[in-house]
Amino acid sequence: MNAKNSSMTDALKWTGTQLQVLDQRVLPEEIRYDYYNDAQGVTEAIISMRVRGAPAIGIAAAYAVVLSVKVHYSEHNSNWQQQVKADIEQLRGSRPTAVNLFWALEIMNKAMDVENVSPIASLEVLAKKIHQDDIAANHTMGALGAELLIEAKGVMTHCNAGSLATGGYGTALGVIRSAYKQGLRKIYAGETRPWLQGARLTVWELAQDGIASTLIADSAAAWLMKSGVIDWVIVGADRIAANGDVANKIGTYSLSVLAKQHGVKVMVVAPTSTIDWAMVSGEQIEIEQRQPKELLNDCYLDEHSLVDAWNPVFDVTPAYLITAIVTELGIVLNPSEVNGVKSLQ
Amino acid sequence: MNAKNSSMTDALKWTGTQLQVLDQRVLPEEIRYDYYNDAQGVTEAIISMRVRGAPAIGIAAAYAVVLSVKVHYSEHNSNWQQQVKADIEQLRGSRPTAVNLFWALEIMNKAMDVENVSPIASLEVLAKKIHQDDIAANHTMGALGAELLIEAKGVMTHCNAGSLATGGYGTALGVIRSAYKQGLRKIYAGETRPWLQGARLTVWELAQDGIASTLIADSAAAWLMKSGVIDWVIVGADRIAANGDVANKIGTYSLSVLAKQHGVKVMVVAPTSTIDWAMVSGEQIEIEQRQPKELLNDCYLDEHSLVDAWNPVFDVTPAYLITAIVTELGIVLNPSEVNGVKSLQ
Repeated sequence: MNAKNSSMTDALKWTGTQLQVLDQRVLPEEIRYDYYNDAQGVTEAIISMRVRGAPAIGIAAAYAVVLSVKVHYSEHNSNWQQQVKADIEQLRGSRPTAVNLFWALEIMNKAMDVENVSPIASLEVLAKKIHQDDIAANHTMGALGAELLIEAKGVMTHCNAGSLATGGYGTALGVIRSAYKQGLRKIYAGETRPWLQGARLTVWELAQDGIASTLIADSAAAWLMKSGVIDWVIVGADRIAANGDVANKIGTYSLSVLAKQHGVKVMVVAPTSTIDWAMVSGEQIEIEQRQPKELLNDCYLDEHSLVDAWNPVFDVTPAYLITAIVTELGIVLNPSEVNGVKSLQ
Repeated sequence: MNAKNSSMTDALKWTGTQLQVLDQRVLPEEIRYDYYNDAQGVTEAIISMRVRGAPAIGIAAAYAVVLSVKVHYSEHNSNWQQQVKADIEQLRGSRPTAVNLFWALEIMNKAMDVENVSPIASLEVLAKKIHQDDIAANHTMGALGAELLIEAKGVMTHCNAGSLATGGYGTALGVIRSAYKQGLRKIYAGETRPWLQGARLTVWELAQDGIASTLIADSAAAWLMKSGVIDWVIVGADRIAANGDVANKIGTYSLSVLAKQHGVKVMVVAPTSTIDWAMVSGEQIEIEQRQPKELLNDCYLDEHSLVDAWNPVFDVTPAYLITAIVTELGIVLNPSEVNGVKSLQ
């Protein structure tokens, strides 16, 4: 299976009539797209984690609304908006933590309420704009973030905040791609248990682009930092509170505490669509708990088992542990000292 | 496959003519013993990680020397000691970090040099004594360590420092077993990538004893600490330097740094056979690097792959991050403040 053609690795492809979703659960062994013609299908694709990554989830949801309008809209159906709103409610329930999902659905929902003679066409334009804006934002963030890395010896990333997690190019990996062009070579990726997004997606995605990287066990990160080879941890975000606290993949908080103790800096890269202005602090962010079976051997899954698992999928990193939040509108340095991310509003 | 009979879960069984080694690579799905009649076989069992855990490796090596003497000794072979010493050299090369291996081999080697009319019998007695002393030490440490946990709400352990890693009862898990008897109920185990000793061995071993536990991803430990449910991290050790620095499974250093930042205490439980008095500090301890393939998908294993892995199997925790070192000779509190572990010498 070879995927040198970069268009093959898009997480999402919109054909005009359907959304094609790369099934990220089977990477890197298999490159397989599933095709969806309605919002129910896309909802299931998000729940099942065929598509993951906050920006990609938001984009998929926007296209799902277009599919819903295509299914329900007709001049003779005065009820189509209610039917689409029911689909939107389903989509809202697919994952709780990434705010881009709710952000994209809100944009689509509002647009649908505007009097319009051709809602299908205009909503499709809007979904495509959300998608294209995300790619453009990633390129902007890539350039901005790379400026902070001019003197970096090495970096580490966690989970996958790459092309696969976004409309394209990536947030954290967008910065790493841009920094690679200016000479950065030491790039480490944490495996990111339990889904192994680092091992399955990040190192694969970088290799597709000709960028060499080194995988480590998540618990080796502190020892790596102590060895002195990295000076930045670079991650994406699922939700950023107004005070600069960041919800991201479980382990990000751990890395941020460890980074502080080792003089390593922490960069969060996310479009402003990831900022939840209504959240005063990260303490209010709902953290998704996933099934114990993601961690447990099958022999522990019966109800009398003495072995359980605690499986939060995200954690919250307080702003004081973050060196820089990079968005498409600019960089916030030391967010805890400058009133969070308010300067971006 | 049911192993309620605790004798079934011994890592090592000595029959008098052979060493039976539980293949820990196939747990918990399968309980399978491999039988060894010579030192070469036991060397391979250590290299292949059928047997792992510093004390268990030392005990296996002691029995391997007995097997070697059985093979080579006869009244007519004046060269038998050289032949056994060659086997000992092979055993010394099997794993580099756990000092119990070298400690046990040194005891057996010295005993062999003593003029003796029945070296097979006396060396067998010695190997069995090393084994029994380890079990006794674990029970002593269990009682001593549990005293520190009288008021503990919850604990976390890493890797497997249990019955499977020792002669029996366990070091860290020995303390947890003893604390369980006095009422401790919240017990968390980290998965411990890449070999998953926590997920495959620790929670299984505890369940065999009727003790419930909760598995977490290694990178969730910081978030668990932040939630306030644990007040101790309890681990074993592969080598302790004279100043109290501790080499143990990769991730122990990470947990210790995180523990310090969260007001969680760190207990290291190890018999004095794990102390390397010749090592002034942990910086001199050789850290075993294992194959990248333990972390990498098969598709990255060809020589042109852009994906590599950094796979240190141990790390070193400086003494100042350790609250207590529990040995069979007593507890050293705050080793960095009391001249390391010298009080035990």
